[in-house]
Amino acid sequence: MDLNKVFYPKSIAVVGASTKPGSVGNDIVRNLAQQGFAGKVFPVNPKATELYALPCYPNLSAIGQPVDLMVIVVPAAIVPTILEEGGKLGIKGAIIISAGFKEVGQLELEKQIEAICVKNDITLIGPNCLGVINPEIKMNASFAALMPSAGSVAFISQSGALCTAVLDYAQKLNLGFSKFMSIGNKAIVDELEVLEYLSKDEKTRVIALYAEQLEKSQELIAMIKKITREPEAKPVIVLKSGRTSAGASASASHTGALAGNDSAYEALFRQSGAIRAYSVSEFFDYIQIFVDNPFNPAKNVAVITNAGGPGVLAADEIITSGLNLASLSDKTTTALKQVLPACSNFHNPIDILGDAPADRYAQALEIAAADPNIDSLLVILTPQSMTEIEATAQAIKNIKDKCRKPIAVSFMGEETVRSGVEIMRNGSVANFLFPEQASRSLSIMERFQTGTKKIKEKEFAFTDIDKTGVRAIFDKAKQAGQHSFPESQALEILSLYNFPVLNSCLVHNVTEAVAAATKINGRIALKIVSPDILHKNDVGGVTLDVEPADVAKKYEEMMSRVAKNKPGAKLEGALIVEMIPHGAEVILGSSRDANLGNMIMVGLGGIYVEILKDVVFGLSPLTAFDARQMIDSIKAKKIFAGVRGQEPSDVEALVDCLGRLSQLLTDFPEIKELDINPLRLLASGQGARVLDARIVID
Amino acid sequence: MDLNKVFYPKSIAVVGASTKPGSVGNDIVRNLAQQGFAGKVFPVNPKATELYALPCYPNLSAIGQPVDLMVIVVPAAIVPTILEEGGKLGIKGAIIISAGFKEVGQLELEKQIEAICVKNDITLIGPNCLGVINPEIKMNASFAALMPSAGSVAFISQSGALCTAVLDYAQKLNLGFSKFMSIGNKAIVDELEVLEYLSKDEKTRVIALYAEQLEKSQELIAMIKKITREPEAKPVIVLKSGRTSAGASASASHTGALAGNDSAYEALFRQSGAIRAYSVSEFFDYIQIFVDNPFNPAKNVAVITNAGGPGVLAADEIITSGLNLASLSDKTTTALKQVLPACSNFHNPIDILGDAPADRYAQALEIAAADPNIDSLLVILTPQSMTEIEATAQAIKNIKDKCRKPIAVSFMGEETVRSGVEIMRNGSVANFLFPEQASRSLSIMERFQTGTKKIKEKEFAFTDIDKTGVRAIFDKAKQAGQHSFPESQALEILSLYNFPVLNSCLVHNVTEAVAAATKINGRIALKIVSPDILHKNDVGGVTLDVEPADVAKKYEEMMSRVAKNKPGAKLEGALIVEMIPHGAEVILGSSRDANLGNMIMVGLGGIYVEILKDVVFGLSPLTAFDARQMIDSIKAKKIFAGVRGQEPSDVEALVDCLGRLSQLLTDFPEIKELDINPLRLLASGQGARVLDARIVID
Repeated sequence: MDLNKVFYPKSIAVVGASTKPGSVGNDIVRNLAQQGFAGKVFPVNPKATELYALPCYPNLSAIGQPVDLMVIVVPAAIVPTILEEGGKLGIKGAIIISAGFKEVGQLELEKQIEAICVKNDITLIGPNCLGVINPEIKMNASFAALMPSAGSVAFISQSGALCTAVLDYAQKLNLGFSKFMSIGNKAIVDELEVLEYLSKDEKTRVIALYAEQLEKSQELIAMIKKITREPEAKPVIVLKSGRTSAGASASASHTGALAGNDSAYEALFRQSGAIRAYSVSEFFDYIQIFVDNPFNPAKNVAVITNAGGPGVLAADEIITSGLNLASLSDKTTTALKQVLPACSNFHNPIDILGDAPADRYAQALEIAAADPNIDSLLVILTPQSMTEIEATAQAIKNIKDKCRKPIAVSFMGEETVRSGVEIMRNGSVANFLFPEQASRSLSIMERFQTGTKKIKEKEFAFTDIDKTGVRAIFDKAKQAGQHSFPESQALEILSLYNFPVLNSCLVHNVTEAVAAATKINGRIALKIVSPDILHKNDVGGVTLDVEPADVAKKYEEMMSRVAKNKPGAKLEGALIVEMIPHGAEVILGSSRDANLGNMIMVGLGGIYVEILKDVVFGLSPLTAFDARQMIDSIKAKKIFAGVRGQEPSDVEALVDCLGRLSQLLTDFPEIKELDINPLRLLASGQGARVLDARIVID
Repeated sequence: MDLNKVFYPKSIAVVGASTKPGSVGNDIVRNLAQQGFAGKVFPVNPKATELYALPCYPNLSAIGQPVDLMVIVVPAAIVPTILEEGGKLGIKGAIIISAGFKEVGQLELEKQIEAICVKNDITLIGPNCLGVINPEIKMNASFAALMPSAGSVAFISQSGALCTAVLDYAQKLNLGFSKFMSIGNKAIVDELEVLEYLSKDEKTRVIALYAEQLEKSQELIAMIKKITREPEAKPVIVLKSGRTSAGASASASHTGALAGNDSAYEALFRQSGAIRAYSVSEFFDYIQIFVDNPFNPAKNVAVITNAGGPGVLAADEIITSGLNLASLSDKTTTALKQVLPACSNFHNPIDILGDAPADRYAQALEIAAADPNIDSLLVILTPQSMTEIEATAQAIKNIKDKCRKPIAVSFMGEETVRSGVEIMRNGSVANFLFPEQASRSLSIMERFQTGTKKIKEKEFAFTDIDKTGVRAIFDKAKQAGQHSFPESQALEILSLYNFPVLNSCLVHNVTEAVAAATKINGRIALKIVSPDILHKNDVGGVTLDVEPADVAKKYEEMMSRVAKNKPGAKLEGALIVEMIPHGAEVILGSSRDANLGNMIMVGLGGIYVEILKDVVFGLSPLTAFDARQMIDSIKAKKIFAGVRGQEPSDVEALVDCLGRLSQLLTDFPEIKELDINPLRLLASGQGARVLDARIVID
């Protein structure tokens, strides 16, 4: 696999080059011929002699020169023949534009081209895609008419149609691309390979991905982690459609594959460190803030505005999105008072008044940029009659050029502010239509900069688990055709993975009882064990809350009491069960996503699950960081801190259980469903106890 | 008060007309002189003779002709003199542009101008404002340079600076205004008067309001209800800054007044039927969907797209914002199959494929518009090389002209789609940059059309309350300097308003005990009453769960038991208290917002309040509809439906309690704080019980 054959070909053959203007096969040749590509272009069309001043060839073999990349635009049924021919000629790169494969149910045809590519080591993009653009070498091997400017954004889209809108809008934003591609049905090259390539691509600083369906979750998580973390962190921004089930079902009929459950995607993006955009609008905003700024913290924002109202709107969104309004240093306040009119607001948002000329902006920005209490700047301009639009834009650009703090701007309006917006776009200053977008984008910068990038992770590593033991149980069950494991068996399996299962022990006499209780080392309950007794309580067969010292006495008492109450019953002994205090009840579970694999769920039990659906999903395997992040995403997590006089819960024990669950699922992928419900969390340092569980395997 | 003097003056004097270009006093004269205003304009400037070809006057008196409106741009200190002069001349309309009043602490000066206006019956806009524009008569009595086109949107802004950005952006959207004004410090005319005027203004179809602080909540609620409900419903869209406390404090220093708590504003907008936009972007989107469409239901949306991915993104947002993807009728599916290519998606979203020409859009739209299962249409276009941008825009406009269903469009992109966007803007078709905005805007149309517009309300009317009794308690307490009412007194007050307070009765002998129990008619508890007994349980002084038939016996038993256990204690009798079953525990409360008045809170008690802050606020007084809407806004409201085998709760009893609370607060505005915690809701039909309460008055 060598994506350089696709991104940096020296020679390209277009098979299916058409003389009909407006057709896809014509557009591609035109784009390659007329947009500055310096390599060789060979249109292949047996009926034509020349196209856009390039000689045509009847077939690939007739070219007689080395070809790096073949772009295929012929009907689906002929594609395998072309691909075979190219393979024989040693062409290692291919883009299949043609549709008519998996997406319309032609699975066999898609498998056929896949096999040809594997056999001939062809790096294939598509089929059913728009093509690939590399603005750096002015190669537009797609049927999109626009050649974007060269820049630092790599854009990968599963949808071809979205690409044209993105190109168009990007042009307005003056957004430049390092690589631009639609990957269609992903027969050979999918997101994973492209991400791998981009991780090392020096031209790419920001990665933007539009996805409808993903697979290979573990590999994707590992790859995106690698990309988004230090030292060479690049943000990966993802727009994923099919969030809702209705959306997902529309997506399914669109891509010809079942779209995944959104919980699994949420988990994938959270664990990998990808930044999820929830709308096309956010997608562009987030790309822009990264493209136009150094990757630096943005937590404490100073707002500088010539309009009070919009300043407050920006402040609202700053708080809502988790940032702070910076507290200005005394030095800053003093300096501002020296340069701003007396009526200005010297608190943050800094209102420099409606009549602010450019140099007032410049002075305020200069002062704010020097304040160590301020991480980032948000500049707002509304066009008053005395506002110096262009000079203000230039002043902002000047600050941006010498300051390492992220800057987001909103010149509000359209026609009146356009010339200023142009200056900022050409000067790599991130400008947003409305101030709330600027606020939100800064919060994303902060999340990446101080969150994602810096994560240090500890992998779970358990040495106290008995994999062989569980293997034996599952194997035996499979042979017997058993797939479901009720409480007692499930608890046994969990015990083998050293989950904190409730301590209990079957004893046959008082000596054993005392020994068992000694081992438990705490208060216990005694429960009679007899094949003849169904309702233990009715015959005095349950004794709760027994102190360690009283075990022998209480055992004897219970045995004789039961013997008296139920004469003739065969008394085999008693179950010694530890007594545990109250605590937060948690539910842990696992289910499987069709595309992304085993998911792990955690939430508070009882009404929290039943009424509030307050649960969080992760994708197995989890790191300790993932587990903590999941727990932290539970809305009612305050419960763990201790409420109504309760002690704080042993959250570390919950982290440990999540880790063991992750390990169990990794070791036994045949586990289809698993519920630990409830897991009782004891007070901090006291651990947890599994009270009930069930497991289902394939 | 006559706002026509401000909106439709025949003659305008500009006091403070300046010869200095770029100054506010110059801009206003220029705007009035050069933008087509047909009335008379009198610049007042003692030092000038002519301005923009208009003769100047040394003062108002020198004009010697009737003047309807004076626009005042002189320094704040001189404003009262000018206003007095105008008043004497009989000028009834005024706009004070000048700043330097309340917003910088000059409260006295503001009061002075207020008094002059009241005395002379002057309708005043401002001070500290941008001015007023009436595009219908081409009157721009503001210092904003742009004259917007005439249309159906009335825009009222507390911030002047925001206005210029709005004008600029509106021009791009081709949004026309019926009235456009900034109301500044609102010394005389505030939102309420303007809304009253607009409610009758035939030119206004949509009202858009930007607010930083509101007062007179009851009057505003009544007015907005009147405007937003049938038969002549007009949507009122509000953008309110200061949502967060940081935002609010910024707003405070901006407007010179304390901004209110956002809960109170949420309540105000919910109860009044105003539509709240949470960002400038939403503000414009919501205005646009109403301006360009008939007010009709939008619930079941058909998406028609030439790109699968964006179709799915739109579908996601349709579901998220509470609309449905319409189920196409069989007739529609059959008709679509006849006109669309075989590869199209005939389910909703209807994917008419990337190569769709305009007539394919037209046919699909025609079919969808005729389907009774479809309420509204969402059309998406991405610019492919074969896409007919302008013809498609025209096709959409044609459908829009003959179809009464709301239509929202997203032509995605910028330069490439611009000509199509222009056609739609000129043709009153609502186009949005991204499909998610189109989806969300349709949901707002639906909420207005089938929600707000149609609300039928029942006022609470209680005939079983003892206002005199409560009045007496409060009067007595005030005389005694008492402000706080603990449990027993609070329960007495609530009893007088016929809240379902837990039944209890002090009895002195067995006959009284039986009589009291008979009245309660259910199981009771007996509690000893004795000045000598502190811990009732210790002496056997509490008997729970007594059946009605056993009261006499249990009473006698308890009395002799206590007499034996505590010899010599003076036994006065017993408290008979009804036993009530378990049920959902609710907290009701009241607190006061500095600007908007008494708020009523409702939520589920215990962890829901403590951990999840799951409470909802309303503004007193409430209607029964308001009360139900509040209960419906509680996140954990499912609890009321009955969970874990519990019976459904008596929600009607909760509605009744909310009504009684609202009545109590209305009757006694001196109630500063009130808590009913908990109110236990019994099973449906069984009512509720107040278990504890406290009240604080001023």
